[in-house]
Amino acid sequence: MATLGGPTKKHKVTVIGSGNWGSTIAKIVAENTRAHPNLFEEEVQMWVFEEEVTLPEDSKYYDASNAGKPQKLTEVINTCHENVKYLPNIALPTNVIANSSVRDAAKDSSILIFNLPHQFIGRTSKQLEGHILPYARGISCIKGVEVAEDKVSLFSEWIGEGLGIYCGALSGANIANEVANEKWSETTIAYDPPTMDSRSPSRNPSPSDNVSASPNMEHKDVRGRSSVSLSGALKNIVALAAGFVEGKGWGDNAKAAVMRVGLLEMVKFGKEFFPETVRVETFTEESAGVADLITSCGSGRNFRCAKMAVERGVTVAEIEKTELNGQLLQGTSTAKDVNNFLKARGRDGEYQLFTAVLDILEGRKTVDDIPDLLARADDP
Amino acid sequence: MATLGGPTKKHKVTVIGSGNWGSTIAKIVAENTRAHPNLFEEEVQMWVFEEEVTLPEDSKYYDASNAGKPQKLTEVINTCHENVKYLPNIALPTNVIANSSVRDAAKDSSILIFNLPHQFIGRTSKQLEGHILPYARGISCIKGVEVAEDKVSLFSEWIGEGLGIYCGALSGANIANEVANEKWSETTIAYDPPTMDSRSPSRNPSPSDNVSASPNMEHKDVRGRSSVSLSGALKNIVALAAGFVEGKGWGDNAKAAVMRVGLLEMVKFGKEFFPETVRVETFTEESAGVADLITSCGSGRNFRCAKMAVERGVTVAEIEKTELNGQLLQGTSTAKDVNNFLKARGRDGEYQLFTAVLDILEGRKTVDDIPDLLARADDP
Repeated sequence: MATLGGPTKKHKVTVIGSGNWGSTIAKIVAENTRAHPNLFEEEVQMWVFEEEVTLPEDSKYYDASNAGKPQKLTEVINTCHENVKYLPNIALPTNVIANSSVRDAAKDSSILIFNLPHQFIGRTSKQLEGHILPYARGISCIKGVEVAEDKVSLFSEWIGEGLGIYCGALSGANIANEVANEKWSETTIAYDPPTMDSRSPSRNPSPSDNVSASPNMEHKDVRGRSSVSLSGALKNIVALAAGFVEGKGWGDNAKAAVMRVGLLEMVKFGKEFFPETVRVETFTEESAGVADLITSCGSGRNFRCAKMAVERGVTVAEIEKTELNGQLLQGTSTAKDVNNFLKARGRDGEYQLFTAVLDILEGRKTVDDIPDLLARADDP
Repeated sequence: MATLGGPTKKHKVTVIGSGNWGSTIAKIVAENTRAHPNLFEEEVQMWVFEEEVTLPEDSKYYDASNAGKPQKLTEVINTCHENVKYLPNIALPTNVIANSSVRDAAKDSSILIFNLPHQFIGRTSKQLEGHILPYARGISCIKGVEVAEDKVSLFSEWIGEGLGIYCGALSGANIANEVANEKWSETTIAYDPPTMDSRSPSRNPSPSDNVSASPNMEHKDVRGRSSVSLSGALKNIVALAAGFVEGKGWGDNAKAAVMRVGLLEMVKFGKEFFPETVRVETFTEESAGVADLITSCGSGRNFRCAKMAVERGVTVAEIEKTELNGQLLQGTSTAKDVNNFLKARGRDGEYQLFTAVLDILEGRKTVDDIPDLLARADDP
């Protein structure tokens, strides 16, 4: 680390979001700010979308005098130091401070870590606009991309442009509960901000070096937010296909075959539509690429729901209804969006797996058709 | 397919080897020769290392009049059309003919498919030398490479040079029993023989096009026997590491991280020592590469034994003794050979995962050291 010439302003870090993954990231960040007091303010604000929770009688935080009375989630977090609703049984460092006001949470922060459902990005950015430090930097932990017919946009760019700041991206083989339980894990951070200028709070140009430096979570900086974000979106389509094949009981050869073709199409999609910005190596070498694909096809939600659908002989849409309370899987909407995007370019015949998944989801093909549908997948 | 100008001699195909994988390949080959009578002689000879088997009373082939009397394995195969010892409960096509003489089995064959334990290559080649058609072509289904301190040799080249013929290589995410049960599967065939000359039995230059064309097993021809064979060897080291991590219960993130670093080192090894002959894409795009790695780290033998060793708190060598009757895992010897090869070149510090696996196998490090040992794995 560069020696700093005298006292400088420290970084204040805020985590925007407090779900399963958001709370996990807040835990790591707070451990790091505590471990590096020369660089960071210890307190980490975490924005919580306020809701009321009622602690059950068997909760260790149950208070008889308060029996049955709903409490604010922020208050429970700040009292119990645990996000009892979204990351139960994991102690949060006491320097994580839940805050229901996103503006107040982000005030004076030089590092903003976005970790919320992508549907909230627009609204939250609006609330923050004009209320953050002009030299703040962001990192988006929101996996995926927004695919419209006419273009693919990165969530990190959407956030960055909305707020007028640089925003990097973090993605990887990161099942939140495993990370929260301090199991060894890697991630990929694409963070390559423009050179700092005089507005910078310190002359040390690399806040990202420490953000995720936890003994249990290692990261490698890479250029290429596009690859990281694309990979995080497209792998969900592949995970659906892997779930279909596993649900049929076709064995490990078939599942590996589907994953191989999926990786091939992820790389091809990146090369074809993002020739300037995509790093092929991110897909094949980084935690955000092949490793995240492996994890997603091993125990991810898209994989599990697709497998369940085949085993029960119902559609994935039915599983979304009955098992996810109608919440949609990331993979189903991405499959639709990506295929629309391809069709708009006359390229829908060229991505056999992506198209097969949509055709199966929409009932035009069945899982038994997969071998035939993928027969041309290796053609250049 | 090219139209042939009049009658030509047909291909005769022989499978050298009859274990679990050899018998499976013989099944596919015999289905194909039957389906393409214009190209192939129907009968497929399969060389069987003769041994005696005694059918148990509950075998469907048990013959009371013959009770308890050992029979020759070749006779059982040719009577029951099943390899009761190495591929039980799978019907072999009746045109698979077991033969205990390797010379007789290979006589007049234009296509020789090698599928036997690599320890038998030298001896078997010696027996065949001078007794095969001079224009025969081979395909080796023997995974891996021979790594000595001074060089890495491909089994396919060893066979080809020993017999004075061209020999291609087949490798992929191919668990034999899944293929034998006709589950959908892919493989990679590296088959790029020199142009046929006048000794060729037909003007159709591509016997490989049909060899593996089964409805359940698809293949893609690629150049690059080196990549296919190297990948088949190195993935076993990675599978040990994945087993170690899984045995510790570290979860999917950690396993994916180990597999990612393993793939990285496989590619790096290929690029560094086989710059002329290795195709990087084979590792990252082919069935013989990333797909085989996934399968091997999912249910392969190296993976399972390493996991078991950690769970029971014993060494892998002990598992080899107690669970494999002293048979050695491919991964343990490859780890040793590859590290010796690297050491001889002063490059042993540069392959963290390969070295970590050997150090753990030999007791110099423990599985708990893996995160630290891999911390530099992404350095160029």
